[in-house]
This record gives sequence, structure tokens and C-alpha cells, in this order.
Amino acid sequence: MKALIVYAHPDANSLTAALKDLAVSTLRTEGHDVVVSDLYAMKWQSAADFTDFDGITGPDFMHASGTAFETGRLSPDIRAEQQKLLDADLVLLLFPLWWFTVPAILKGWIDRVFTYNFAYGAALPRYGDGPLAGKRAMLATLTGGRAGHYTPRGVNGPIEDLLFPLNHGLLHFTGFDVLPPFVEHSAVHLSDDHYGQITDRFRMRLTTAFTTDPIPYRSETGGDYTALTHPDGSELRPDRETPGTTGFNLHLAH
Amino acid sequence: MKALIVYAHPDANSLTAALKDLAVSTLRTEGHDVVVSDLYAMKWQSAADFTDFDGITGPDFMHASGTAFETGRLSPDIRAEQQKLLDADLVLLLFPLWWFTVPAILKGWIDRVFTYNFAYGAALPRYGDGPLAGKRAMLATLTGGRAGHYTPRGVNGPIEDLLFPLNHGLLHFTGFDVLPPFVEHSAVHLSDDHYGQITDRFRMRLTTAFTTDPIPYRSETGGDYTALTHPDGSELRPDRETPGTTGFNLHLAH
Repeated sequence: MKALIVYAHPDANSLTAALKDLAVSTLRTEGHDVVVSDLYAMKWQSAADFTDFDGITGPDFMHASGTAFETGRLSPDIRAEQQKLLDADLVLLLFPLWWFTVPAILKGWIDRVFTYNFAYGAALPRYGDGPLAGKRAMLATLTGGRAGHYTPRGVNGPIEDLLFPLNHGLLHFTGFDVLPPFVEHSAVHLSDDHYGQITDRFRMRLTTAFTTDPIPYRSETGGDYTALTHPDGSELRPDRETPGTTGFNLHLAH
Repeated sequence: MKALIVYAHPDANSLTAALKDLAVSTLRTEGHDVVVSDLYAMKWQSAADFTDFDGITGPDFMHASGTAFETGRLSPDIRAEQQKLLDADLVLLLFPLWWFTVPAILKGWIDRVFTYNFAYGAALPRYGDGPLAGKRAMLATLTGGRAGHYTPRGVNGPIEDLLFPLNHGLLHFTGFDVLPPFVEHSAVHLSDDHYGQITDRFRMRLTTAFTTDPIPYRSETGGDYTALTHPDGSELRPDRETPGTTGFNLHLAH
């Protein structure tokens, strides 16, 4: 199989960098082809702007990106990443958690690569059947905080909910089967023991990446939601959830 | 009073740009001093890296940023934005909602400006008493989706929860009083009527920005949470919430 690792950390001596190397070697040992987009090394442009569209300016920014995609006029760096996505069976986003989401350079990879009519669009299905359906994706992230701060009653909020905009809003939206995220906390100045535990757990997640059950997000078109174009759509129909389910968990099938 | 508007849109003809101009004129008419950080016009660097730290490299990226801050060696562009934050009584973040959060260029403003020991740090209180306490902040954002997709049962998830990492994890964390966000949906190719409704509502939010009640997020040090350094801290103590409250809403005082 083919794996794409999108990696974003400014320090080549960081734990995130070590996990990137571990991911490459582990996935290759498993027999997979591995491609790495090392965003800092690539000096990836973060800001999405009209210079990406070879002169196309209208009628608005989103539709200009779609027109540039359809006519092959997107910047070469964007087209290269889109091709890597199309080629991949597994996409791993590997980053430190900065302000509860991805670093700006990785947000810039998302903003610029997931263009209109490539990753989403008025004529494209979404949330389960999007254009990247059939591929797997997994977030892998490290935090400096304590695990207890990310529990259901922890002061930061539960990590699963904090990552929902990425897991559901980006990856499930565009069609991926989304694996449970790999998250490690207190990932600053590790003891050798702690380092070994983290690398062991990460290696396990990598070797099972093609067999792990994805998060069971609902399909938008599977009947659980009212019609997309309904005035109150696309809302979860009554009584689809286990009684007492609330919040983002409503969007999990049981 | 002094207001800082941090504005991020690549199209000077966008609705977001029009709202930026409206915010400037409305706040000035109210008698406030207004400063605008127009991130695209400034060609703001998004990627946080060691080049910001004038040669400081260790012991890790986060602490290097703190050392650079303490010794006055942060890049001039970062120091200028930190000073604007210190000067401001009100901070308005104005942006289109891209993949359920801020565009990369605005994430880059957050990543690079909110450094260790300026906005957070081991010796600094957080969640309500952070270093930016006493200031107000408000998100103002536009989406292309339908309002019904952002309701409690809407397929995207409720907008309040999608914005929680920004409102609670960034703004409340660093000390701001966080105003309810200004959010408008279906903000693509508006009718004149719809445009007028949006500008009327935004003008109202601007003129009441210093009197609107903030979101009643709990203080981390106010007794509602277990001690920060407790093995299970900082978790919301039992029975602090109205029965039945779940998810991010646990962190609202009632």
C-alpha cells in the first residue's frame, strides 16, 4: 500500500521528528511505499491567496480555486500534493498540538491543497462519500499538557472533541475513513522509559493502520440526516442516537 | 478605548473585507481608537520557526520562544503585534471560516505572537486569569454553509462547539473576556437584503462590544476544578454543573 506522511515541526531534534522517522521505517518494514511531505523542509507556503490560481480571479476566492483546479492552473506545489493524496491509501498528519489544533504551516497545507472541486464542492458528496473515499487517514499529535486536562471533565475539554473539526470536519467530510487519533501528552523532556512507551504505542498503531476500525462517523447520505437541501437540513433525525448521547458524539453511528 | 482588528481574507472585494471597513468606521464613530492588522496586506509570515528567535535555539521550540520574548529578541513583526495586544481593550478576529477554524495566515499570527511567557507559561495563570486579563475579544466569522448545518443536531456540529478551541482554548486561556461570536452563514453571493441584515447585526455587535456580557467560562483557579498539579487535575469537580450538562458546556458557569 502507499502511505503519505504530512509532517510539520520546526525542530529536527523534536519528538515529533523522531516519530516521523519511526513512521517511515515502520511502514517501509511493513512493505508499504512511503512518501513524506516535510512542510518546514519544503518551505511550504501557508497563506492561500490568488497567486495560486495563475491569474484566475473570480467570481470569488473559493470558486476561483475550483476553476484553477479544473483547468490545471493551480500552482505546481499544490498539484503535487493533490497527486500525493490521490496516490495514497493512508494519510498520516503528524504535528505538535498548538492551540488545540494544527500548526499554521499544516493548516496552510490543508487550506491550499483541499481546493474546491478537488476535496469538496456543490456537486460532490461529503461526510463519508467525498472524493477521497476509500482512503484512510490518521492524526498523530503530541501535547505538552497533562492527560487529565484532556478528559471529558478536564479543563481543556476532551481531546476527541477538540480534534473533531479535523477528524470529522476535514477528513470525514472529504471521504476518508478516519482512524482514532494517536495522541500522547506530557511530551516534553521525556524520560527514556516514557520515550520507549510512546514509540512502542506509535509502532503498534502504524502496523495496524490498515486493519484498525475507523471512527464510525455517520454518512450524510445514509438516511440518518434530513435532506441536505431541506430548510432544516442536514440535521440528525430524531431518535437515531442512543438515548443520552449529546454533542459531537451524535455523529457517531452505534 | 482601543480596539485591535486582526483581519484575514485574500480578497479585498469579499464580504469579510467589507465588514472590516464597517468595523473600523463604526468603532471610530463610537470614539474608539482602532488599529488594523491586515494580515494579507502585511504579508504576515505564518510558519513559526527558529528564525523568529535571533539565534536562540534551545532547549526546545516552546522554551526558545519564551527566552526570545524575555530577552527582547523576538522578530520585530512579532513584538509589534504583542504591543498591539497589550495596548488593546478589545481584540476582534475577523475571518472566513475555512475547514471550521481560522485561515492559516491567522493561525500563524496566533502561533507566532502568543509566545511562551507572553501569553502562557508555567508560571502564568490561565483560563480566566491569564496575562491578557482585563481585555475583551470577539470572533467574527462568515461561513458558506447553511445555518441548519451548524445547529446542535446539524451535520457539521454546533458552531459554538466548533469555535470552542479558539474561544476557550486560546482567548479564555490567555485571559480575555470572550464575547459571544458574531457568525453569519450562507455568506456567498448575497442579496442586498441579506447584506443589509448582516451589516446591521454586525454594527449592533460592535456598538455593544464593551457592554455585552462575555461567555461565562469558568475560572481554572476559582474552585470549580481540582488543583492543576493534582494527578487527575485540572478536572471539573463533581456536581458543579446543572444536571444533564455535557461536553464543552461543562466549562460554562451557570
